[in-house]
Amino acid sequence: MEQVFFIDELRQFTNRIFVSIGCSAEHAIQATEALLSADLRGIDSHGIARLSGYVRLWEAERVNAKPAIRIIHESPSTASVDGDRGLGLVVAPYAMELAIEKARTCGTGWVAVQNSNHFGIAAYHAMKALGQDMIGIAMTNASALVAPTFSNERMLGTNPICVAIPSGIEPPFVADLATTTAANGKLEILQRKKMPAPDGWIQDKDGHGTNDAHALKQGGALLPLGGDREHGSHKGYALGSVVDIFSAVLSGANYGPWVPPFPAYVPMPEGQPGKGIGHFFGAMRIDAFRPAEDFRQNMDKWLHRFRNASPIDDSCKVLVPGDPERMMEAERRAQGIPLLGAVVDDLRSLADKFSIPFPER
Amino acid sequence: MEQVFFIDELRQFTNRIFVSIGCSAEHAIQATEALLSADLRGIDSHGIARLSGYVRLWEAERVNAKPAIRIIHESPSTASVDGDRGLGLVVAPYAMELAIEKARTCGTGWVAVQNSNHFGIAAYHAMKALGQDMIGIAMTNASALVAPTFSNERMLGTNPICVAIPSGIEPPFVADLATTTAANGKLEILQRKKMPAPDGWIQDKDGHGTNDAHALKQGGALLPLGGDREHGSHKGYALGSVVDIFSAVLSGANYGPWVPPFPAYVPMPEGQPGKGIGHFFGAMRIDAFRPAEDFRQNMDKWLHRFRNASPIDDSCKVLVPGDPERMMEAERRAQGIPLLGAVVDDLRSLADKFSIPFPER
Repeated sequence: MEQVFFIDELRQFTNRIFVSIGCSAEHAIQATEALLSADLRGIDSHGIARLSGYVRLWEAERVNAKPAIRIIHESPSTASVDGDRGLGLVVAPYAMELAIEKARTCGTGWVAVQNSNHFGIAAYHAMKALGQDMIGIAMTNASALVAPTFSNERMLGTNPICVAIPSGIEPPFVADLATTTAANGKLEILQRKKMPAPDGWIQDKDGHGTNDAHALKQGGALLPLGGDREHGSHKGYALGSVVDIFSAVLSGANYGPWVPPFPAYVPMPEGQPGKGIGHFFGAMRIDAFRPAEDFRQNMDKWLHRFRNASPIDDSCKVLVPGDPERMMEAERRAQGIPLLGAVVDDLRSLADKFSIPFPER
Repeated sequence: MEQVFFIDELRQFTNRIFVSIGCSAEHAIQATEALLSADLRGIDSHGIARLSGYVRLWEAERVNAKPAIRIIHESPSTASVDGDRGLGLVVAPYAMELAIEKARTCGTGWVAVQNSNHFGIAAYHAMKALGQDMIGIAMTNASALVAPTFSNERMLGTNPICVAIPSGIEPPFVADLATTTAANGKLEILQRKKMPAPDGWIQDKDGHGTNDAHALKQGGALLPLGGDREHGSHKGYALGSVVDIFSAVLSGANYGPWVPPFPAYVPMPEGQPGKGIGHFFGAMRIDAFRPAEDFRQNMDKWLHRFRNASPIDDSCKVLVPGDPERMMEAERRAQGIPLLGAVVDDLRSLADKFSIPFPER
C-alpha cells in the first residue's frame, strides 16, 4: 500500500529529525535537501527510506551530528577534506562547494574526502556545478557487495559515478550510474516481489551465476557492469576500482573490503586502513577550455542530435542520461511522492521516537 | 601464418615510414614509440597493423605530417590544444605533457584537444604520468560504431578511457577500456575466423541482437558496455557519451556521428560542427591530496589485497587492471612480437612504396 506525500511535508518532517539528532539548523536543511533529492528524482532506495538508517548510525555513534569538517591538505586546484564522521549529506556539499571555489580561480577544482558517511545520490552533488557554468563530477565508495572478475569475494561497493554537464536551452546531461550491472535497490525490489534475478546480475558464494535474488544473503555478490568476462565485467570492475581509489586511497578513507557498512548492526571490518568512507568531487569551468557560449551551442547540438537519434521502436524515444530522472522530478513535484507502506511505518516509528508530528493522510 | 619480430626491428622500420611521409625526426620517434606500445602490450588492433592506415590518411591529406600544434585557450589548471591535423600519436603526447606541467604547478592539469587524429592506445598516454608520481587519465572519441540504448543508429565511437595510478613496490593500476561490451578488434578476429559473435556484443540494422559478426557492415552497431537495458547498456552509453563530450564538445572537435572515420576511403560526415577528432587528458599530482609516501603505501595495500582476493577457480588468479598487458609486454620484449601474415604483407607493401628495407626472416 503506497501513500503519497508532497515534498514540503517530507521536507519539514525530515528536517525535524535531523535537528532532533543534534544537527545545526544549517546542517539539517542541507541534509534534508540532499536526501530528498533522491525521492524527487525517483531513486527511492536512496531517499527518505534511508532516514531511519542514518538515525541508527547516529545511535551507534558511527555518525557525528556536529562535525567540524576541515581541509587537511591542499594545492591551488585540489584539497583533501576530513568529514569528522559527519553525515555524508552534509560533508559532501561542503566538499563540492570547495571544488567549485577552486575551479573559479584555477579552472578546475578536485576534492577528496575521508572520514565521511553515505552521501545520498551522487547526482545531487555533481549537479551543484551546473548553475555555475561548470561540469560537476561526484563519486563515492561504499561497503563491499561486488566481486571482481574471477573472484568469489566481495571487494567493492556499487561505487557510483555522476557527471553533470551544463547546456544552453536543452535540458542538461546528468549521468549517474552505479558501476554494477544492477543497483542493489533493484535487487531488493525483486526480493520483495519474490521474483528471480535476471542472468548476469549476481553470483552465488562459489562464484557461479544465479537467479536467486537472495544469493547476497548467502555469501553471493553483485556483478560489475558487464556481468561476465565475455561481456566486459573486467571493465565494470576497473571502473568501480577507480572510484574506490580516487575516493579513499587519495583521501585516506577506507577502501575495498574495509569500507564501513551502512546498516548500523553490521560490525565494522577489522584492521581498517583509513577513516570512514571516501568521496571524490570535481568541478571544471567550461570557459577554462573554450568560450562558454561556444560550448553551450555545441552541447545543445549534441543533446538535440542524441535525443533525436533513430529509435528501434517508435514508441520508445532515445533518451539522454538524466532525462528519466528529470521527468520524474517534474511529476513528483506536482503530484507528490509515493512511499511504500513499510517506509511510512518506519517513518511513523521515527516520529514517535522523537515526538515529532508525522504528516496526516 | 605468423612471423615474429623484435621490437627494435619494428621500431627502426616504423620510424623510417614516419620520416618518409614527412614527419620531423623528433615526431617520427614519438609516433613510433606510441604506436608500437600497443604491439608490446598485446593490443594488436591498435599497433603496427594500423601503420598503412595512417599512411593512407596522409595520402588522402587528412593527416598533416608537419603540424604546428598550439595552445588555443588556457587557465592555470587547463588548456585546449589545436592539433593542426597532426598524427594523434604526436599530438596526444604534447597534450599529456602539458597536463603534467600544469599539474606540477597547480596540483592537477587538464587538456582538451581538437583537430587531431587516432592516437593509438589510451594507456600509452595516461601512463606517462606514472613516473611523475601522478595519476594519468586519457580518453578519445572515435568514429561512430555504437548505438545508444533504444536506438538503431550509430552515434558514438568505442570511446576508450584509461586511468593509470602509481604505486610503491606493487606494479601499478592501469585500466584501459573501450566503453563497449567488446572492442571492434575482437569482432574482426571473429570475422576472420568465420565464428559467430556472442550474445550482447552487436545488433543488426533494425536494432535486434544478432550473432552475425558481419552485422556492422550491413548497418548494425556495436553495443555499449552492459549490452542491453536489463544489463545496464544505458551506463555504457552514458560513459561513452562523457568521453565524447569531454574530448570534443569541450575542445571544439567533432562529436557523435560527425567524428572523422579512420579508413581514408570512407567519406567525411557532412556538416561537421568541429575540427578533427578530440581527446581529453588529465594529470593529478598524488601529493596534491596527501603525502606521496602515505598514498604509495595504501595503494600497495589496495593492489596486494585485490591481487590476493579469493579466486573462483584456483587456476585463474584475480587480476588488477593492467596486469595482463604488463605480463604480455615482458613476454614480447623478450621473445618478440608475432605479426599475422596479412599484416606482414601489408608492411612489405609499405616498404616497397617508400623503398625502405623490411626486416628479413
